[in-house]
Order: sequence, then structure tokens, then C-alpha cells
Amino acid sequence: MATKTNPGRFFEDFRLGETLVHATPRTVTEGDRALYTALYPTRFALQSSDRFAQMSGFDESPLDDLITFHVAFGKTVPDVSLNAVANLGYADCRFLKPIFPGDTIRTTSEVIGLKENRSGKTGIVYVRSTAVDQMDDPVLTWARWVMVNKRDVASPATEPVLPALPEAVSAGDVPIAEGLDFSGYDFDLAGEPHRWGDYAVGEKIDHVDGVTVEEADHLFATRLWQNTAKVHFNIQARDDARRLIYGGHVISLARALSFNGLANAQMIAAINAGSHVAPCYAGDTVYAWSEVLDKTETAAPGVGALRLRLVATRNRDADMALRAEDGKYAPGVLLDLDYWALVPV
Amino acid sequence: MATKTNPGRFFEDFRLGETLVHATPRTVTEGDRALYTALYPTRFALQSSDRFAQMSGFDESPLDDLITFHVAFGKTVPDVSLNAVANLGYADCRFLKPIFPGDTIRTTSEVIGLKENRSGKTGIVYVRSTAVDQMDDPVLTWARWVMVNKRDVASPATEPVLPALPEAVSAGDVPIAEGLDFSGYDFDLAGEPHRWGDYAVGEKIDHVDGVTVEEADHLFATRLWQNTAKVHFNIQARDDARRLIYGGHVISLARALSFNGLANAQMIAAINAGSHVAPCYAGDTVYAWSEVLDKTETAAPGVGALRLRLVATRNRDADMALRAEDGKYAPGVLLDLDYWALVPV
Amino acid sequence: MATKTNPGRFFEDFRLGETLVHATPRTVTEGDRALYTALYPTRFALQSSDRFAQMSGFDESPLDDLITFHVAFGKTVPDVSLNAVANLGYADCRFLKPIFPGDTIRTTSEVIGLKENRSGKTGIVYVRSTAVDQMDDPVLTWARWVMVNKRDVASPATEPVLPALPEAVSAGDVPIAEGLDFSGYDFDLAGEPHRWGDYAVGEKIDHVDGVTVEEADHLFATRLWQNTAKVHFNIQARDDARRLIYGGHVISLARALSFNGLANAQMIAAINAGSHVAPCYAGDTVYAWSEVLDKTETAAPGVGALRLRLVATRNRDADMALRAEDGKYAPGVLLDLDYWALVPV
Repeated sequence: MATKTNPGRFFEDFRLGETLVHATPRTVTEGDRALYTALYPTRFALQSSDRFAQMSGFDESPLDDLITFHVAFGKTVPDVSLNAVANLGYADCRFLKPIFPGDTIRTTSEVIGLKENRSGKTGIVYVRSTAVDQMDDPVLTWARWVMVNKRDVASPATEPVLPALPEAVSAGDVPIAEGLDFSGYDFDLAGEPHRWGDYAVGEKIDHVDGVTVEEADHLFATRLWQNTAKVHFNIQARDDARRLIYGGHVISLARALSFNGLANAQMIAAINAGSHVAPCYAGDTVYAWSEVLDKTETAAPGVGALRLRLVATRNRDADMALRAEDGKYAPGVLLDLDYWALVPV
Repeated sequence: MATKTNPGRFFEDFRLGETLVHATPRTVTEGDRALYTALYPTRFALQSSDRFAQMSGFDESPLDDLITFHVAFGKTVPDVSLNAVANLGYADCRFLKPIFPGDTIRTTSEVIGLKENRSGKTGIVYVRSTAVDQMDDPVLTWARWVMVNKRDVASPATEPVLPALPEAVSAGDVPIAEGLDFSGYDFDLAGEPHRWGDYAVGEKIDHVDGVTVEEADHLFATRLWQNTAKVHFNIQARDDARRLIYGGHVISLARALSFNGLANAQMIAAINAGSHVAPCYAGDTVYAWSEVLDKTETAAPGVGALRLRLVATRNRDADMALRAEDGKYAPGVLLDLDYWALVPV
Repeated sequence: MATKTNPGRFFEDFRLGETLVHATPRTVTEGDRALYTALYPTRFALQSSDRFAQMSGFDESPLDDLITFHVAFGKTVPDVSLNAVANLGYADCRFLKPIFPGDTIRTTSEVIGLKENRSGKTGIVYVRSTAVDQMDDPVLTWARWVMVNKRDVASPATEPVLPALPEAVSAGDVPIAEGLDFSGYDFDLAGEPHRWGDYAVGEKIDHVDGVTVEEADHLFATRLWQNTAKVHFNIQARDDARRLIYGGHVISLARALSFNGLANAQMIAAINAGSHVAPCYAGDTVYAWSEVLDKTETAAPGVGALRLRLVATRNRDADMALRAEDGKYAPGVLLDLDYWALVPV
């Protein structure tokens, strides 16, 4: 009798153009929101208050955009990255529709690129993943590429196919949630007076606050997203007997810390690129800083967009240095995330 | 003035046939579901997705059957086992009606057996506990026996009365949730292709994955179930100054790990027997394996039942050995649970 | 470009009579209730069961009164106490309206007193904070005073203004939730038989149970309340590299432990005074005892009020000593809280 457990896919198992249906659709609820608030020091008013959301054009408070991201992403792990050696990057991640309590998310992925590495031991798999809700409306789409082990070093290499991916979602393509309206925005309740016009391209913001991470923080989070990667949970899965913190946990932590200085960056509209520069472990004290990369107006009433670099660091770097003199990431940098946020004009 | 705190019942306090009304009815909600997902690496589609549940004959997603079990069981602790020396076993545990967010559970117990031990220091108390919902419909019933201290060694022994308990819920008596229908089952969304016919009696499944337990995991869980046993929370309550993990936490952990190989075992219909073979502590890395003990068809459309042995171990045992050569449980075995699960045919 | 982060207010920034609008209104939900249950060993029936609440005059189960307190209080931290040297006390805290899932809380504070300290380095700020729900109905009001650093030691002292604050909410002013009715109270489901008449002024109750606190306990709690004080989260924010546990966490823990002996003290109507006598850290095993200070009947059917002193201690003090021989708090005392609770007559 064949084994009934899932060994994960190896490089040879991926076929260009095939669609992977990921398991375990997930209804998100107020329980997820409460846990998100308990896990991250987040205080954005739009995701905290039904009334503030109603003043912003919604029927009720949407769940944090990163809840959508984590849930949708977690679904892909058993089929895409269980045998991954490295998560190399993502691109063109667009938040198409906000998620509200009671919505059900499921994810599929299309294989859009394959390239064997020279060593013959591994290859790079590119997938375009799409999450839809219970109306089959797309809520999130993103491209991702991972390095995956080959099952057999001797298996023949296939013709490399590399997908065309944009360097960033262009200013004109920033997705805006239907109905979003910041024309009656309450800056007092949001917590800061800074509006879109107050941010200048090139400006850097030190978010000042830090959080020392506990094991329970990332374990609860990563399980909540039904992300099954062993290295996050099982100290026997790594030689150093430490749990590697899920990269998405660092994204959420840095985003929450960015409230102090970006309290009005209420929604994430797109993620252009993300690098998990260094591993994060329990005991690390994580800080964040941001840099304004670009800005654009939008067609939605009162809504502008800022393109931001969000950098998470181990220990505080008041100098906000991204790179060392050698051009490599500065020591202590954990995350370099490039995203579009929606702010009141 | 008499003390107002509850000292717990001693052996002499139990009367054959009396009914104990347990305190603190409990409304279960989406908050419990979210926490359950954050506490255990569970991915069963039926308890994760309203849509999957609707395809299976329900109006919405039921809460995990073990939430019902833990909540109902936790209620009995202050009245039954506060002075227990040992939890000796349970039997004939039947899940009669699934629980949905908003349902309120309360539990009563009838004393169905009493037997003093030869030492005169302790006795065994047998109770039949029943949990009902807000409609007074029974949702769960089970028998349990615990060894309880006597208040006074000199108190006279009573006539021993032992209840008749079935070795297992028989194949014809496996309870099926009203309305359950797997005839339109989606194996892709559930995560595995294996159906009832693919499992053979005697087959063993190594669930492969492991989780290193943190203190916060079981503390949050055990409090959530309002289980008050001191040894789980207070390091001063035990000579070794360690917190003993609630046995039910290991059940839920093993059940969640069993997804990998038993993703379609969507519901627990009955627990036939359970032994907490060895204590579990934070820091242990827990794995699980299963053995198919029996199987039966049911009257519900598309629904079959598997009788499974679920074994949790400290560290992985790829040999899946239940017993050592001396007939005792193999070293590392933490839990030996015998239950009926419902799977698509 | 000016910094965009919030440095917090210094003593000179507060103006007598000004109103501070605190950020991030917060919709509370069943998720908060579930987390509260997972964080504290609470078992009060009124906040656990919709049915019990319906028997008590409500449409559904209210959230724990301390959830209201923590959420409302957390809002004030960034504007009032970010640069606080010490939280000196609170008074006249009245719970005016219970909070139910879906309600949205926001808080404002009026500066009601200012007094510079002799050193010239710090001053005492008195605020009256009021939380309202989405109907703009007040749900909680309290006075609080904190010692805050001056920005500049040389800045001139202002005329001291001290507010008039009652030593305690008087027996005739104890607020009662609209509709509360204990005339059909079920003592079995509540867990204890002791009614209002069974408690005598001067009586002390040792709540017996203890909980050894984990870091995750208070971190999850304090984040859930969106309380931003650095010392709770960031080990680099304190010289001893330890996280200081939020005082409100100790209040909730002690209140939950008081169930054993005060299971029928279902609601907190008012907090008269509170002293966080000593800091609490992870690893401490916390116990609680209570003393009946006063009692009064109320106009609500079946409802009486007890004025209670709730004392939390590090390690158990079966002698329940509040003060040492020198008149100072006894060693081990963490919290001395004076409050009014509502109990069935």
C-alpha cells in the first residue's frame, strides 16, 4: 500500500501551465482579527473599528490585508514549497478586494516558469497564485519563485522558461478597494495628522518602537495561517534546533510598528517586491523604518497612494541604512519590502 | 464562617446515582475556532470553511469536535477530578450533534460506579457525563473513571458497583451528524485523494510531521476550555515545578498532525477508549501515527467510518511500535486513542 | 521635515481643561472574549454563556467588564502616559453600560489637574477619561493620575490645580447595568451557593488557586488592548532587560482567580482605587485573596453589591496580610484593588 502522506513536490513534478488547487479553503472571522491584534501591535483605525470603516465607504471593518495575504499564501506551502530550499522572491502582488469576516478564501497556483539550476540538484519554480472568495471574485494575486530540490539529480533538464514580471505595480495600476472613500477622514481617530501631501519621495521615517519576539508569537500566527512548513514548528527539523520564524510574521510585525509615523497608511494595495534578508528568531528585538519611494494620486475620493520601502531590523538602526559599504544589505536588516499603501490626501 | 472556596469532592462525597450539575455554561464562537486553529496545526476542510461545510450538508462550518469535547470535559473537573490521583480512562464517548458558533454547552454527570481501593486511601469513581446545547439536545456523552482520594482513610467502604461499559462503540452504533452528506465531496479542496475504500484494516500511517510544544500552547488551550486542574497552570502545584500538559491537548495535537495521511477523516464520531500513557511537557516534540482498526459503511450518503488508533509519541517513531517486547507501551508513547472517524466513501 | 512619529506628551504639553481625543476606535467581538478566556482562568457564568445572560436580563452575554476597561485604558497611553515615570493611581471608575460583541469603543480624556513636583523634573497630570460606544453612550469613566517627565527642567511651574476625587464610589451611587435582574439566578450553573447575604463585612477569602505567568500571557493581552507602553514589549526599553507586566494584566488575573469563593460576583460596577504595589514578571506565580469592605442593596431586582478589596500576591499568603508591621504593604503584595461587584441577593 502506497504511503498516504504528502511528500511535497520536487522540481520534476511541476509542469509549465498546470494549475495546482490548494487544499483547505478557509473562512476568516472576527476570531482571526482578534488574534491578529493580539499577535502584532497594530493600531490602524480602518481594521480596528466598524465605525471608522463606515466613514471610509465600507459596510464594516475589513480584515487586515496581511490576513488575506497570510491565509492565501499558507495554502500554497504544501504544494509549492514543502521541499523548497529557499524562497527567492515575490512580485506583482495585488490586493484586489478587501476581506470581511465570514468570507471564505481558497487559492490556486499556475506554474508560470521553470528553470533548472546548473548544479542539477535544484531548480527554480515560478508560480502565479490567485486567491478567490466565496463569490469566486479574486481577492489577491501574486507571483512567487522558489528554489526546489530535484528528486533525482540525473533527471534531464527541461527548457528554461522565465515569466515576465513587472519590477513594480505601476502608479496607474495600484488597485483600490471598491467604495473606498477618505473624503470624510477623521485624523484624530486615526492617530496622526500626516496626510498624503505631507510625505515626500526620499523621506525616511524611523518608527522608533521595538518588540522582542517570543516563540508563541510566531507559532500562533503561523498555525493560524495553516502554514505547514516544518522549520517554523519543529526544532528537530533544523540542525541548529531553533525554530525559523515565518517571513510573513516579520512583515506583519514591521507593518504594525510602522503605525508610528504612518498611522494613515490604512491599506496595503500592492506588494512590489520582498526580500527576507536574514532569518529572524525568538529573542530578537525587531524595529522598523520606512522610506517613501514614490507617490501617486488615485481616482478614489480622498485617496492617495504612497510607494514605501518597509525595512525590519534586528535592533534599532536610527541611521536607517539599507546597505553596507560593500553594497550588501546592512547587518541587522531582516526584511526589505516594497509596497503601495493607501492614505488620505 | 465556613470557607467559600471549593475544596473539590473526595471519594466519600460521591453517591451512586446522584447527578452533578457542572458550573459555567459556555457559548462557543468563531473566537474559539480561531484560537483552535492557532493552537493546533489543523487543516480539516469541514471545520475550516463554511463553503466546504455547505457542500457537506451543513448550513455553516461546525466547530471541531474536540472543541466540544474539551469544553464539555473541562466543566466536570471542579466537581469530579479536583482531588483525582489519576485519570484512569474513558469509554463510550459519542458525538451526537455537531456544535456551531453561538451554541451554548452545559454538562451534567451521573455517578454510575464506585469502588474503594484496597488501600483504603482512594477509590474509583465512574461517571457518565452528558453535554447538552441550548435546545437541551445532547451533543456529547461519555463515561470516565478516575481515582479519587478519600477524605478519611477510616471511613467505611461501600459495596463496590461497577458499571457495564462497552469495549467500543459498535460499528452499527457509530453516531452520524444529522444531514451529513459526502456525496458531493471535493477531494482537491480537502487536500488528499484517499477515500474510505483506500484504507485497509491493519494499515498504519506515519503522519511524519512533528511539533515542538511551547508552554503557551497548552496554557492557552487549557484555559480556553475553562479546565481548572492546578497541575496544568501552577508550577508550585507539583514537586518537579513543571506544568503537566492537559491530556486533551495531546489528543488535539495528534489529531491535527494526522491530517497528513488522514485529511479526509473529517469528523470524530466516537472515542472508544483513551490512555494517556506518559506525561507530556513543554519542549517535547510530538509526532503521531495511526492504525486502521476497523471500518464500516453508514446510512449517510457518501459517508463511511474508520475505526482508528491514534498514537502520539515524544520524538518520531517511524517503526510505529505501540508495545515494547515486554508488552508494555513502547518508550515515547504519550497517547493511545481509539476512535471512529467519518470519511467519504 | 519634522519627525512624523509620536514622542508622547511631556508635562508642559498638558493644558488644564483641554480634551484629548485618543486614536484608534476599537470594535470588540467574540474574538476578544475567546482570547480573554484563553488568557485568564475566568469562569464567571454571565460572561461565558448567552443563556445565563438571558436569564439575567440581557439579550446576550456581555463581554467581561475588564475588557472594556483594558480597551478604553489602552487608548489613553500614547497621549497620557508614554513619558510617564509612574502610574500613581485611579479613582471613581464607573462601569456605566456593559459592552457586547460588535460595540465600538473610543476614549477621550480631559485634563482635570496639574501639579509640578518640587524637583522641577516631573509633574503630576490628572485626567478624567471617558469611553463611549457607537451610540455615543458613555460606557466607562475614570480618573487617573500619572507622574510625567518635564521636557525642560527650566520651564516655569504653573499654579497647581488638584481635582476633587471621591475616596470611593458611595454605596448609593454604584452603577447598575440597565436591565440586570438576578431574581431568576441559577446558583448551580454559576458554580457556588454563596449569595450577597452570605458575605460579611470584614470577611476574608483565600482564593487558593495560583497561576505561574508566562511571557505570552501578558504580551498577547497587552497587545490585544492596543496598549503601546514600551516596557511591556521591548526588553531593550529597560535596564534589567525584562518585560514589565502591564498592571491591568494582574487585575484580570486576580479577578479570574477570585472566582473560587466569589463565583457569584458576576459584574464589576466600579473601581474605587487601585495600587500596583510591586512589579510583576513572567515566572511569578500569582495568587489572590479578597476582603469584604462594605455591602449595599440596590434597586435592581435580586441584585446586591459588595465592596471588595482584591489583593494579588506573588506566591500564596494564606494569612492574607495586606500590611507588614511597619505599615507598608506586605512583601509579595502586587496589587491592592478596591471595587464594587454585583452579586445575587
